Amino acid sequence: MTTMYLISFFAVVIAVAFAAYLAMWVKRQNLGNARIEQIGKLIRDGANTFMRREYKLLACFAGVVAVLILIFLPRPFWSEGANFLDNVKMVIAYVAGTVMSAITGKLGVYVATLANTRAARAASEGIKPAFLVGFRGGAVMGLGVVSMCLLGVMLVLMLAGDTTALLGFSFGASSLALFAKAGGGIFTKTADVSADLTGKVELGIPEDDPRNPAVIADNVGDNVGDVAGMGADLFDSNVAAMAAALVLAFSLDGGFGVCAEMVFCYAALGLLASALGIAFARIGKNGNPTNALNASTYVTTGIFLVLTAVSNLIFFSGEAIAWRVWGASAVGLVVGVIIGLTTDYFTDDTRPIVKRVAAASKSGPAFTILSGVAYGFISALPAMIGIAISALVAYKLLEPMGGSYPLFGIAMAAVGMLSIVGMIISNDAYGPIVDNARGLAEMGDMGDETVRICDELDSAGNTVKAVTKGFSIGAAGLTVISLLGAYISEVNEAAGKVVIDVLNIIDPTVFFGILIGAAIPAVFSAMLILGVDRNAQRMVAEIHRQFREIRGLKEGKADADYDKCIDIATQGALRELIPAGLFAIIATILVGFIGGVSAVGGFLLGNIVSGLLLALFMSNSGGLWDNSKKYVEAGAEGGKGSNAHKAAVVGDTVGDPFKDTAGPSINTQITVVSLVASLLATLFLNISIF
Amino acid sequence: MTTMYLISFFAVVIAVAFAAYLAMWVKRQNLGNARIEQIGKLIRDGANTFMRREYKLLACFAGVVAVLILIFLPRPFWSEGANFLDNVKMVIAYVAGTVMSAITGKLGVYVATLANTRAARAASEGIKPAFLVGFRGGAVMGLGVVSMCLLGVMLVLMLAGDTTALLGFSFGASSLALFAKAGGGIFTKTADVSADLTGKVELGIPEDDPRNPAVIADNVGDNVGDVAGMGADLFDSNVAAMAAALVLAFSLDGGFGVCAEMVFCYAALGLLASALGIAFARIGKNGNPTNALNASTYVTTGIFLVLTAVSNLIFFSGEAIAWRVWGASAVGLVVGVIIGLTTDYFTDDTRPIVKRVAAASKSGPAFTILSGVAYGFISALPAMIGIAISALVAYKLLEPMGGSYPLFGIAMAAVGMLSIVGMIISNDAYGPIVDNARGLAEMGDMGDETVRICDELDSAGNTVKAVTKGFSIGAAGLTVISLLGAYISEVNEAAGKVVIDVLNIIDPTVFFGILIGAAIPAVFSAMLILGVDRNAQRMVAEIHRQFREIRGLKEGKADADYDKCIDIATQGALRELIPAGLFAIIATILVGFIGGVSAVGGFLLGNIVSGLLLALFMSNSGGLWDNSKKYVEAGAEGGKGSNAHKAAVVGDTVGDPFKDTAGPSINTQITVVSLVASLLATLFLNISIF
Repeated sequence: MTTMYLISFFAVVIAVAFAAYLAMWVKRQNLGNARIEQIGKLIRDGANTFMRREYKLLACFAGVVAVLILIFLPRPFWSEGANFLDNVKMVIAYVAGTVMSAITGKLGVYVATLANTRAARAASEGIKPAFLVGFRGGAVMGLGVVSMCLLGVMLVLMLAGDTTALLGFSFGASSLALFAKAGGGIFTKTADVSADLTGKVELGIPEDDPRNPAVIADNVGDNVGDVAGMGADLFDSNVAAMAAALVLAFSLDGGFGVCAEMVFCYAALGLLASALGIAFARIGKNGNPTNALNASTYVTTGIFLVLTAVSNLIFFSGEAIAWRVWGASAVGLVVGVIIGLTTDYFTDDTRPIVKRVAAASKSGPAFTILSGVAYGFISALPAMIGIAISALVAYKLLEPMGGSYPLFGIAMAAVGMLSIVGMIISNDAYGPIVDNARGLAEMGDMGDETVRICDELDSAGNTVKAVTKGFSIGAAGLTVISLLGAYISEVNEAAGKVVIDVLNIIDPTVFFGILIGAAIPAVFSAMLILGVDRNAQRMVAEIHRQFREIRGLKEGKADADYDKCIDIATQGALRELIPAGLFAIIATILVGFIGGVSAVGGFLLGNIVSGLLLALFMSNSGGLWDNSKKYVEAGAEGGKGSNAHKAAVVGDTVGDPFKDTAGPSINTQITVVSLVASLLATLFLNISIF
Repeated sequence: MTTMYLISFFAVVIAVAFAAYLAMWVKRQNLGNARIEQIGKLIRDGANTFMRREYKLLACFAGVVAVLILIFLPRPFWSEGANFLDNVKMVIAYVAGTVMSAITGKLGVYVATLANTRAARAASEGIKPAFLVGFRGGAVMGLGVVSMCLLGVMLVLMLAGDTTALLGFSFGASSLALFAKAGGGIFTKTADVSADLTGKVELGIPEDDPRNPAVIADNVGDNVGDVAGMGADLFDSNVAAMAAALVLAFSLDGGFGVCAEMVFCYAALGLLASALGIAFARIGKNGNPTNALNASTYVTTGIFLVLTAVSNLIFFSGEAIAWRVWGASAVGLVVGVIIGLTTDYFTDDTRPIVKRVAAASKSGPAFTILSGVAYGFISALPAMIGIAISALVAYKLLEPMGGSYPLFGIAMAAVGMLSIVGMIISNDAYGPIVDNARGLAEMGDMGDETVRICDELDSAGNTVKAVTKGFSIGAAGLTVISLLGAYISEVNEAAGKVVIDVLNIIDPTVFFGILIGAAIPAVFSAMLILGVDRNAQRMVAEIHRQFREIRGLKEGKADADYDKCIDIATQGALRELIPAGLFAIIATILVGFIGGVSAVGGFLLGNIVSGLLLALFMSNSGGLWDNSKKYVEAGAEGGKGSNAHKAAVVGDTVGDPFKDTAGPSINTQITVVSLVASLLATLFLNISIF
């Protein structure tokens, strides 16, 4: 136990020190010109304003939940055998989860808004320095998130001494992630869609043109949605994967035993592997940024597999489970990489699918949509097969050990898949930084060559994003499967006997839960899409008003009122994010009170299955449309201004909320629902109609 | 046993006689003018050509399957305990299923192409006579399908003496329905989409303008897709529901007992109730056709509930299960009606949702799509809840009887929901008849008033279609749940012991099956959508060619080459229908050989759950877009020619293959997969990797 805590602590210290060094390095880079500096400040201020107001709202929400936890969880404090101290521990763990999630968000936005201006400046010198600024900025976020996760899990476990509090910590991280992802997603797509619709389509001015009042909001959105939201999402997945593995580990060993040691050891080595991968990331002077990003992912994967194998020899050489667990996490990791590669096949513009959708666009927007929907559906199949196989293999690897070991195997496959999450986040956060840099280069009149370099970096960001998104959906899938296992072990523990041994599909309460659970992700994403829709309409109206009322704006002689647009995006996002999140939570509670613990088990299954399907469909079709549009803009099928281009723009506009609002939020929705179910298991056991 | 066979036979005789009377009545009606007569002939010939070629292809397919059945099913003929006679019986049942399905399709097209010209002619006299021609034409189909189903099931059971052959009969009906629905669906939407795209969008000529070369193909498509395909689909659902109920009934009573008696009794009374409902269908001189159609559905529902209650008193008064079964089928029927009503809420243009999508269209096609997708997702929730609740209640009603009775309860809920299917088909087939009549009135220059009357009748058809579609998806949902039960009882019977007692979600092979099963409907519908897409592109190219090469076509001075377009739609549909159908079947077989019977159980569940979700989503969003377009065309949001209209047309074009090709085909796909699983249970038991 102590050894593994020490190793974990050591990994965290190394990673934090390295992240601090990288942050200093980024900060030391040269600033751009005064114009860029000024616009950069607008973006930073806008992002900070949104984050402040969002966190204020979420603090109220978390406060209410904290009070409910204090009263009811893990048991109603007045009930027999309840210990009020447990409730206090749970509240502390929950609050710690929300606070740490909030801190990662803030950290990400802080670094990203430092790096964006500097990357724009560096792009005037060439692709290599600009790449480094973008990548290292992202890496600070990546290392920060994973360190925070490992540290948090460790502290909660040390202080509380049991894994129930860990579920509280995870729930804190999840509930914040749910809203941060949904809120940030609504913000960013409101601004993006409105800017495109009024700028590119109606007025025919280029992207990132400073005359467009929504342009700053669009860049703010990249930070609050794609950096802060994504960070919260992956922080959440990572915590949930560790929590699920540890719940099972503690129940297997009756406390902190060899299983828990392996969880910490592998998580710590994953963090170290990511740090090493980041340190080795290189790009030639005129190198290809996509290859550089992907190469560092593969390097990290290799390092992780080697380090864990070595750790098996040193620490777990006498343990029967050691190599089986290693196999499970290796399968998880490798399948994750494969899912990423197939996602790439469906969304990369050097592959046939993007070209086909671009060709279909010649017949009009209906065909862009139809073909994108169809390929989006098809793209879900390989990932579903991958997740199914990795779960099956991980289970079978640990089956000979009996008991709950097979479920622990699935949990370790999830931990394995998420082991390189530090690297994944680095690559992911790189995207919005260079996207911002492109906007700044354009608005700061830095010349066509600089914009072109930023474009190339941005395009690499988009491609890699598709890969990392497939990765994180896969990991969420495995995590929630193990959370399903954690749920069952919570139910049985709460009852003091085996209540759920099997969750039988033919049991009508289970089936009832499955059908309703399957509908939830669809309704949840619909609510987010409608939120973006309504919000964008408000912002488009405001942009029209500005062009009508501000004289000289169209000619570039007067400044647009950027703040007003940021304000609309902020208010709208905050207004729309709560109902969707609450809907998912309340549906879980209702099903629990109607059908009891079995129905909730079915509900979780239905939720996972349709959630994975829809998340994959939406993320991939969105990425596909985005890249088809870029492909047409690069000159194919008639190029910019052609009918195919107009149709492709429609596809991209539909895809935007699919891939950046609804799709990735489903991940978090699934996790939150699973945790709510585990936490409320005792209540459902005691109160239900059927 | 004899009593129920006699009652069923009596019901069939009455229904067939009544259908014959109605067909004669339709045939006796006045024909239209020579022009209409001539176009009507073109449509009839086109439909017959397609059906002939389709059936020829399907005969080859069925022949191959028949040989495989002869060798392998119910057991490989060389295996121990196998009786070659059983295999012969199975082949005969299978072939009977395909032939009877084909006959219903032919019958429907025969009557529909008689009724369309006569309805157009009658419309010149007023709404009442035209409504009657359309409705009675549809009723011939409705009564015919249900009679054929009841007769077929009865004959197979009498001749074979066991229910395994019944699964063969059901599989015959399903495999034909799968391809008829998919093929007809691809044909009709190829023609519809191409006609709209070139006619309305590019050339600005009205719908059904005879200058458009695709216009006859479009009308042919209504017959082969919406009449023949729909009929095969509901024949299939009805047979499957009866088969599932009878498999469970025989296993409960160890042969033909009271359970089987109730199945036949209720099915026969459903047929009689539909006949009575059809006989009482009325419309005032200037009455509202939507109300008339819905009223006859409610009347039929009431008659069924009364008749079955009376039958309980007469035949089953001493049986403990009688009222419980009545309750289960009543719940199924009532929930079916409720699902229909909620579907109506999302797709009727007097309700808010259609108006909201129309309003969103003002901001461009991307918002038409986004809002339609979102509301389509939301619309799935009430139906999923309805299916979940009816299954739960039906199960709970029969739970006190123990054993497999609860599953039998679910099967009877499906039988109850489908009891009024005769009425449902009548309403459904009414739609394409009056749609054709509208086209004929337009092409035959019958004057604006006649076209307006046809339009009103057509619009009622569209609204009612949404209701009946929700109904048939709900029924398919319940049917496949009971097929899941039938599958388990087949597995256990084949093994000679209880192999599957529970299908445990946590079992990794089950889970493996679930994840892959869930992806199948998505890929299946994607393949159909892409089929329409490719096929429409071929047809659009042909239409462009005709306008380029045939002089005077645009001015209406020369005739278009309609046959060429019919030919393209036919060839394309036949080429595209096989891969999608085979894909679903082969995936089932692969999962069975990899994961064994438990994996297939999970596969069926995943398939059902995501299939229902996607079928509801696609049918409803398609209906929603269609009616939003009509709503704009009626003058809202700027009316015809406005930007909102252009956007709404894009929505409608996307929705067409959603609602008429992919969505309804998923029903059949689910049933086929369930039957394949049941039939191959023995093989999977003996050969599998895990």
